[in-house]
Amino acid sequence: MKAAFEKYIPFVPINLKDRQWPDKAIDRAPIWCSVDLRDGNQALVEPMNLQEKVTFFKLLVDMGFKEIEVGFPSASETEYEILRTLIDQNLIPDDVTIQVLVQAREHLIEKTFEAIRGAKNVIVHFYNSTSALQRKVVFKKDMDGIIDIAVKGARLIRQLAAKADKGTSIRFEYSPESFSGTEVENSVKICAKVMEAIGATKDNKIIINLPSTVQVSSSNHFADQVEYVCRNLPNREAAIISIHPHNDRGTGIADAEFALMAGADRIEGTIFGNGERTGNVDIITLGLNMYTQGVDPRLDFSDINHIKEVYEACTKMKVHERQPYGGELVFTAFSGSHQDAINKGFEYMKDSGTEYWEVPYLPIDPSDIGRQYDPVIRINSQSGKGGAAFIMQQNFGYNLPKAMHPEFGNIVKAEADRTGKELSAQDIMDLFNDEYLKITGPFSLRRHKIEEGGQNGNSFVHFEGSIRKSDEELNIEGEGNGPIDAFFNALNKVGIEGYEFISYHEHAISTGSNAKAVAYIELKRPDGGHVFGVGIESNINIASIKGVLCAINRSLK
Amino acid sequence: MKAAFEKYIPFVPINLKDRQWPDKAIDRAPIWCSVDLRDGNQALVEPMNLQEKVTFFKLLVDMGFKEIEVGFPSASETEYEILRTLIDQNLIPDDVTIQVLVQAREHLIEKTFEAIRGAKNVIVHFYNSTSALQRKVVFKKDMDGIIDIAVKGARLIRQLAAKADKGTSIRFEYSPESFSGTEVENSVKICAKVMEAIGATKDNKIIINLPSTVQVSSSNHFADQVEYVCRNLPNREAAIISIHPHNDRGTGIADAEFALMAGADRIEGTIFGNGERTGNVDIITLGLNMYTQGVDPRLDFSDINHIKEVYEACTKMKVHERQPYGGELVFTAFSGSHQDAINKGFEYMKDSGTEYWEVPYLPIDPSDIGRQYDPVIRINSQSGKGGAAFIMQQNFGYNLPKAMHPEFGNIVKAEADRTGKELSAQDIMDLFNDEYLKITGPFSLRRHKIEEGGQNGNSFVHFEGSIRKSDEELNIEGEGNGPIDAFFNALNKVGIEGYEFISYHEHAISTGSNAKAVAYIELKRPDGGHVFGVGIESNINIASIKGVLCAINRSLK
Repeated sequence: MKAAFEKYIPFVPINLKDRQWPDKAIDRAPIWCSVDLRDGNQALVEPMNLQEKVTFFKLLVDMGFKEIEVGFPSASETEYEILRTLIDQNLIPDDVTIQVLVQAREHLIEKTFEAIRGAKNVIVHFYNSTSALQRKVVFKKDMDGIIDIAVKGARLIRQLAAKADKGTSIRFEYSPESFSGTEVENSVKICAKVMEAIGATKDNKIIINLPSTVQVSSSNHFADQVEYVCRNLPNREAAIISIHPHNDRGTGIADAEFALMAGADRIEGTIFGNGERTGNVDIITLGLNMYTQGVDPRLDFSDINHIKEVYEACTKMKVHERQPYGGELVFTAFSGSHQDAINKGFEYMKDSGTEYWEVPYLPIDPSDIGRQYDPVIRINSQSGKGGAAFIMQQNFGYNLPKAMHPEFGNIVKAEADRTGKELSAQDIMDLFNDEYLKITGPFSLRRHKIEEGGQNGNSFVHFEGSIRKSDEELNIEGEGNGPIDAFFNALNKVGIEGYEFISYHEHAISTGSNAKAVAYIELKRPDGGHVFGVGIESNINIASIKGVLCAINRSLK
Repeated sequence: MKAAFEKYIPFVPINLKDRQWPDKAIDRAPIWCSVDLRDGNQALVEPMNLQEKVTFFKLLVDMGFKEIEVGFPSASETEYEILRTLIDQNLIPDDVTIQVLVQAREHLIEKTFEAIRGAKNVIVHFYNSTSALQRKVVFKKDMDGIIDIAVKGARLIRQLAAKADKGTSIRFEYSPESFSGTEVENSVKICAKVMEAIGATKDNKIIINLPSTVQVSSSNHFADQVEYVCRNLPNREAAIISIHPHNDRGTGIADAEFALMAGADRIEGTIFGNGERTGNVDIITLGLNMYTQGVDPRLDFSDINHIKEVYEACTKMKVHERQPYGGELVFTAFSGSHQDAINKGFEYMKDSGTEYWEVPYLPIDPSDIGRQYDPVIRINSQSGKGGAAFIMQQNFGYNLPKAMHPEFGNIVKAEADRTGKELSAQDIMDLFNDEYLKITGPFSLRRHKIEEGGQNGNSFVHFEGSIRKSDEELNIEGEGNGPIDAFFNALNKVGIEGYEFISYHEHAISTGSNAKAVAYIELKRPDGGHVFGVGIESNINIASIKGVLCAINRSLK
């Protein structure tokens, strides 16, 4: 018995032996055409209403689209209505061309020309389906019959365009729909016949749009098909070659990128890849892929959150968390080694003053598209020691010394392991508070007096004061070459001993109206282990002393 | 001033002039390795708990995965715990190999070997990062320093493996992490050194895994890198070449497909593409892409809804509506021309008895992966006339005659335009009821008697009965060559005239326990337009008569 997978007919490649595209690079943006209001809208569970379409149209204009397919006005009243609204309310900027789709059928073409009356710049986009499968099962015609449909449509469109108002500039686009399933020789033949019929010239180019209406092969084969057409189309300079990839095989982006290398000039797609079934190619990903290679995409993605908000409100679709560039989680690194590397990348950029973007694991600077550094790192049980320190620094301004990262990192990891959840930045700050700042016993400072003097480069500091140990108050005094040293020696005299001073870091931190100092103190405990303490005060000496007591208190827990 | 996009350093291609991969095809499944429990899990906002991990592991085993990366046991307690649970509770089938990830660092490697004690088949997967960027900003080492880390790790692993229990079969995997950002010559060099250090042979192959940890180029360049390694690695037959694509540029699938053409043997990925940032490559899409080309993917996707349910429950992520194969909307065609073509494809397959899948716009038979035909078509204002007829047929068993599709299609479209919403199948049925079946006036049948006779091939039918017109009851009688003809003539005699009988279709329909007949009657109205009527009765004659009255009543509305 045949296995189920054997009922599928494999794609037959064209075997373009001298293909050029794999050696080409994308060095400039294509002409972009948004089909959000047509292919995108028609695939929504709830199509956009008039107001939503107008809002979406404005977004596309603001992003910089100069060609926007607004619908299939002969197909439904709502499509007709949005077109009339855009025209009658003068919502189309002079440098934006609207595009209308129509099948190569007489009555639909006529209705389409009615619909565009009064528009300044219009692309009339007509199509018929050409694939071997559709010829066989849908149209039951041979290729000549299919060509005849296209040529008749082209002639009628040419006639109607000649009769249109002088104020309306009309260009033409033809799609051999289901191009990806059409033999390349037939694609070239039908496009050439259409170009003849419509009278395309170098100065009056037709857009020849090659859709992968349904993806039927891997992207290299699609690129071969496009390169074949680009190299074999007669009168090539009278055509703008456009592509229109879908995403059935999850390779719409690759189809588009390779088609550009293969000679295409123009791309039809949608933002965030909305569209029939698996969607159309995502123009945001395509554009930002170019951007990360130093190529100007000629579209404005600088506020991707705004684009996403309008998109989600109008389409009622959600942008997936892992959608390239726009997804909620794509600037999040959970892995500890990734987090450490990202921190080092930021440090490198700051220290070196490099003019390039050189941060591992972040293919784009999130701020270039209006996203934040803050959510770059979230903390869960998978995060490394650097992650928690990064959050403390980015979100709260605490620069924990490097030697302290493992201690605090382990505290955070244990909490994440215990709860099995991700920790928010505030959770991390709460842990830091509980673990360091709220530790006030057994020892606390009650009273202090510091006297300092110096001569011939020497200095001495005298500490005198008292500390509380549970209910007891101990008077202490000592001397040293600095306040911490003096305090340390004072402690020794009342039997708090065996601690060794290892390191000290201090920096100003703004909390409220007064800048305070935060001191990080590293001590060696009597048992040999290291322990950190943290103190905050407006007086830097007291911050340090509190840090010392904090470290001792923590070591006694 | 420099524009923002100019801070990005473009990828420098290796310009493999004699590349072979674009002429290759994927003719068999690779070795699959799931990294869902590691790369996938570590990127979740809420990592899976122990029970969820066990559930997920069982799903992967059921799907047919033979190699499953279960974690990074030296990195956290929860990762250690799942590994011990799988081993101690004997949850790992004998033909499944578990894989554990570890950085090439001594204390982590030692902890990893503790964690795997008692397992039957293990792949110890070690890595260090090798890219130019990471060497510069993270490790601050030259390539020799990086190679040294890898080789030391390899030696230690070889030693510890030699000392492991005899019951544990250990294989090795090495990843030059950030391979896609590493110069190919350096990738080959470090892999060759590791292979030497670990003692890989043809009979004891090492897995050399080439991750695009972060995608940095278009997929053709990644394929060139993989082909370069495959062709230049010394002792190639002692290595299984594996790849591990991510999806930063939305081209993970293309990376994987081309890498297989370029010579790779194995793929690491996740189901539905979960994983760090934009995710890992989606193995379901890869496998089903092969499937639609007649290649056995050697994984079981026959109940994709179940896979999706388990996935969503364990990860708390949603599979996006447009995710290839698995997404809710990917077998939905909203466009009228798509719907018509799909209907014709189904008809062609039925009529021709073809052994192949030949339905346009559906790259796979949804039933092959446990999905339904029913939701293939939803109806909104974009749908064509065929869509509503398809729903009536698929969901309710009404085979509307083709000539009736435009009439009913327009009724449905007007409703969709009016409400601006998608119509459910039940909405369509309700419209059909309101428009045809509930029309009972002005004319309705009160009483009837049909007498039929025949001789020498001729037949005659006599109709006698009464119809109600509003409050009035009219007695009617007439003759004809069939019951409809006789009824028609009877109507004429009481002044209901000017209608012409055009066509008639009838079929049995099951509603409840009794099969009934449904008749579709097409009449030409006095004004020349056509109108349809529908009648349902257990008696086929009465169904037809009711259909005629329905058509007349509708024409008088």
